[in-house]
Amino acid sequence: MAGHAVQTAPLVELALRMGDNCLILGHRNSEWCGHSPALEEDIALANMALDLIGQTQLWLGLAAEAEGRGRSADDLAYLRDVPAFRNLLLVEQPNGDFGRTIMRQFLFDSWHLPMLRALQGASDERVAEIAEKASKEVAYHLERSGDLVIRLGDGTEESHRRMQAALDLLWSYAGEMFAGDARDAEIAAAGLAPEPDSLRPVWRSHVEAVLAEATLAVPQNDYAQKGGKSGRHSEHLGFILAEMQFLQRAYPGAAW
Amino acid sequence: MAGHAVQTAPLVELALRMGDNCLILGHRNSEWCGHSPALEEDIALANMALDLIGQTQLWLGLAAEAEGRGRSADDLAYLRDVPAFRNLLLVEQPNGDFGRTIMRQFLFDSWHLPMLRALQGASDERVAEIAEKASKEVAYHLERSGDLVIRLGDGTEESHRRMQAALDLLWSYAGEMFAGDARDAEIAAAGLAPEPDSLRPVWRSHVEAVLAEATLAVPQNDYAQKGGKSGRHSEHLGFILAEMQFLQRAYPGAAW
Repeated sequence: MAGHAVQTAPLVELALRMGDNCLILGHRNSEWCGHSPALEEDIALANMALDLIGQTQLWLGLAAEAEGRGRSADDLAYLRDVPAFRNLLLVEQPNGDFGRTIMRQFLFDSWHLPMLRALQGASDERVAEIAEKASKEVAYHLERSGDLVIRLGDGTEESHRRMQAALDLLWSYAGEMFAGDARDAEIAAAGLAPEPDSLRPVWRSHVEAVLAEATLAVPQNDYAQKGGKSGRHSEHLGFILAEMQFLQRAYPGAAW
Repeated sequence: MAGHAVQTAPLVELALRMGDNCLILGHRNSEWCGHSPALEEDIALANMALDLIGQTQLWLGLAAEAEGRGRSADDLAYLRDVPAFRNLLLVEQPNGDFGRTIMRQFLFDSWHLPMLRALQGASDERVAEIAEKASKEVAYHLERSGDLVIRLGDGTEESHRRMQAALDLLWSYAGEMFAGDARDAEIAAAGLAPEPDSLRPVWRSHVEAVLAEATLAVPQNDYAQKGGKSGRHSEHLGFILAEMQFLQRAYPGAAW
């Protein structure tokens, strides 16, 4: 590969991509803490954030171990800058209103679960184990986010309008999940994960079924925003990191 | 003074208080860059931000020199944490809509100009020089913010409503400018600055005249939010610093 960037091993790359998705989406969900429209939703979002941060520890712990450079999961979370992050653009998008947060979660969960199920057959046992543990939590996330998409989409005129607007806005970020790049090909060749595009049919059929029940129209434009997986992020990630990393940046090595 | 905090000299304290107001308000104004409702306002806010950041360099440069601990103005701006900041709570309040930003600016400018004029008679020549230079810029800031308060207050029904709401919201933060504490008394005793309360009549009469012309009602509640001058800040300052200090925190010593 050209350029000065250190080429990570396929296992490290996979663990970073999975872990960074969980970290950034978990952080976004945690922003709702104390601000949700109802107490139950506040607790549910915080619980989901905790699940995702827990999965982050596993994935980034694996990435740190596999890269063997003496960094910890915390180092990876708190001391990397924007271009080193490997999360999808979708998960770094701002929360917007509650409907947009739920739509983002649903589009992600609908990919996350089949991805984790596929990873249970990975050639690396550590990947398979993390995937098995995480998929139990994520099955619940998907059930919940799909249920809310239906209730809000097929709800009041106002909630329907907001959910359709959220779907139209976020749709172009969904395509990145299925757009394979050279690193995905290496990861697949190593037997670690399926080619991204192979997950599209199951994602699409689940998403379309839920959207139909929610009386929401599937956007026709299939243009895909890309870049997050290889470190080219929207402006939003920098602001997330500035806030998320302040403590370790200002007080290096600070511990409980 | 009790506690573990290092007691700064009156000159250092004055320079920090003046400089931190300029730094934080300048940063807030810079957040508008590219987002203002009209091109002229965008440029005006950016220019005002530049003036304030320029004044920050002078004040924090003086504070750094006077404390003699080997820190630079940049160190003071980028490497202190929340409790070490000495700015008024008013200037760290969120921008809100354009009207709220202008009202915050007007309430501040109406204090800033008479304060700088008084500082031109300070017992320390460096203070007097900075104050003379800054007061030329700030006279223009005040003319401009007062003019906008009148145009928007005595404008449309919508702009009037927004300006009154901004005034009602920010009014309780204005009192801190005139609430003297033990450090203010030391600063005044050293002949560096007037007692804060002595500036209230000129502030009040100017503010009331402008508000009357703007057809805005002076809030009756004179409760004063306090704490910023002694380092007890609202939650907003931490988010400002996380963003503002990211570069120097993540890349210590980075230079152009």
